[in-house]
Order: sequence, then structure tokens, then C-alpha cells
Amino acid sequence: MTTAARGRRPGNPDTRSTILTAARAQFAAKGFSGASMRAIAGDAGVDASLLHHYFGTKADLYAASLELPISPDQVLAWSDVPPEQMGEVLARTFFGAWEVPEVRAIMLGILRGGMDGNEDAVRPFREFVTDMVQRRLAASMEGEDAEARALAMAAHLVGIEMVRHVVRVEPFPSMTVDELVDLVAPRLQSYFDG
Amino acid sequence: MTTAARGRRPGNPDTRSTILTAARAQFAAKGFSGASMRAIAGDAGVDASLLHHYFGTKADLYAASLELPISPDQVLAWSDVPPEQMGEVLARTFFGAWEVPEVRAIMLGILRGGMDGNEDAVRPFREFVTDMVQRRLAASMEGEDAEARALAMAAHLVGIEMVRHVVRVEPFPSMTVDELVDLVAPRLQSYFDG
Repeated sequence: MTTAARGRRPGNPDTRSTILTAARAQFAAKGFSGASMRAIAGDAGVDASLLHHYFGTKADLYAASLELPISPDQVLAWSDVPPEQMGEVLARTFFGAWEVPEVRAIMLGILRGGMDGNEDAVRPFREFVTDMVQRRLAASMEGEDAEARALAMAAHLVGIEMVRHVVRVEPFPSMTVDELVDLVAPRLQSYFDG
Repeated sequence: MTTAARGRRPGNPDTRSTILTAARAQFAAKGFSGASMRAIAGDAGVDASLLHHYFGTKADLYAASLELPISPDQVLAWSDVPPEQMGEVLARTFFGAWEVPEVRAIMLGILRGGMDGNEDAVRPFREFVTDMVQRRLAASMEGEDAEARALAMAAHLVGIEMVRHVVRVEPFPSMTVDELVDLVAPRLQSYFDG
């Protein structure tokens, strides 16, 4: 079998990355439950057994494929952002990240997984939101409802991207990042200020 | 076959409603692609052929099961709401509706469908959002970006319910409707006012 033979290259450092790219595309398009290990293996041109060998279960591969290429902390030192600019910086960072194809595929996979009935699929979404909210936003906010306000900011950003990139209701898909930032940033800032 | 025999009661007016209730629960829990006609038939205690006889395809059954029991226009005459109270009334109506189990099942089905890779599954979500936005909200708003602001309001409400009821990130699942309204209404009002 040519496919299997091509796949059995444990010494090839590109194989892992090829599998991750194929997995990311499948999860972005079909969600966790809709994607199959066999289809991912087919897209990657490797044998399905290799996926299990490298990554373990489908849930393990899902988690591995959704790791962001760089940490948000590397993009931006949140503590250096002036408080009165948090809404704008947050909106621009988040909407801007979605314009990078690899990041968009990852975020779509996370978003679709969040709506899946399967608990393994929901975990990356929950971790992304709690990490963004609890470790980054709420930590620099004041007031006893800081957690709820930070979560509302995250929920708002997620809702916007869902309408813009998944359900695709106009005018969001046609708007530029700048236009979206102008629209959403003042409301994020209002949550931040409390 | 007992199940099939029980199912073949075309004269029974409850059969249709039993099927719709089972469909709603399946779509809410598993989404459009995850739910199967056979499992819905099993839950309803009827033969799968009866689902096709009554409702047609899975997409037809999905659409039929997601019709809200009453129209939002029956709950509320939007044009009678004082403009300065739109944020609060909208938040209370939307969050309150989710507390009604039958409506919650419908909304969960719509939400999960919105994230499905299948276009048939996305349609009810898109129609719900565009109807809410274009016919109800934007129509009573001023400014040339009224459509974008109305869509941001819808996206925000959807994002909140997704985090509260699907991904279940605290503190949203533990908050009362009143607390959620207090948190979100001022930001909806800000979008409404422009």
C-alpha cells in the first residue's frame, strides 16, 4: 500500500507536522465528533496507525492540534497595556489573530469543539476561555464582579467571531479588523472599567 | 415488532408531538450531525419510517423541531419598549426565555447547529439571528451602522448563553437572570444608542 508505506517514516520530522496540519483542517471544518482519524490520516497521506503511534487517542490529537503556535503572552505583555486602552488592544489582538490562517483554523477547531456534545471536545474551549479570563483579564481588573465582567468580555469576543467566521451573518464577514475594533472595543472597555 | 407496531398510529395526534420532543432533546444534546434519525425514533418509541413519513429528511425534522412554541412578537411588542430600556428588556427576554426547558432545548439545538459543518444545520441559527437583528432590532435603531450594532448585540447574547449553558464556565452558570441582566444590559444599551 503506497499510502501506508509513505506514512511509515518515523524518522521524518515533517510527518508530525503534516498530521497536525491535516488534523487542524479537519477539526476546523467538521468539529471534534465530525472529524475521523481515518480521514485525517488520508489527508496527511499516512497510515491511521501512525496517528495513534504519534498522538494517542483522537482527543489527544485534537488537543495537540489546537495548541497555538505562540502563547498570547509572547504577543503581548498584558500588564504593560494602559488600562484605558485594554478594550481596544484586546479586540485588535483577538480579531487580528483570526486573520492568520493557521490561528484561524485552530480557533475554529476550538469553537466548534465547544459546541460538541462530547466532553473531550469542550475541554480546549473551556481552557482557552478560563485562561484568557482568569489569568489575563480578571487579574488586572478591579471590583468584586471582575471575573463575571472578564467572562462577559470573552463571551462577547467569541460570539462576534462565531457570527463572523462560522455562521457568517453580514455585515460581520465583510468588515475589516479596524471596523470591528471600532464597534466592539468601547463595550469591552466598559466591562473592563466596571 | 412492538416498537414499529406502536409507532404506526397515523391517527394519533400525540405521535407528531412525541417525535418533536425526542428530536429536540437529541439535537440539543448532540447537535445536527451527532443526532440520528434512528436514535430519535427509538427515544420516541416509534419506527424510523414514521419520522420520514411525518417530517421528510433529517434537515426537515431539525427545522420543525426548532420552531419556537410562540413567536417573540407574541411575548413582546418591541415597538412599545421605551428606547432607553431596550438593553434591559432585550437581556431579560432573552435570558428569561432560556429558563423555560422547552425553549432552552430549542435554543441549544439552534446554537449547536450553528457550529456544525453542515449547511442544513446552520440555517436555523442564521435565520434566528437575522430575524432578531434585521426585523426587530435594527429596524428600531438609528445611525448608518445600525445593522452592525444590532448584530453585535445578538452576537453578545449568543456568546453569553454559549458560555453559560454549553461550555459552562463559572460564574455564568451560577448567576441568576437578574444578575446577568445587570451585567449585560448596559452594554447592549450602549450598542442600541450608538
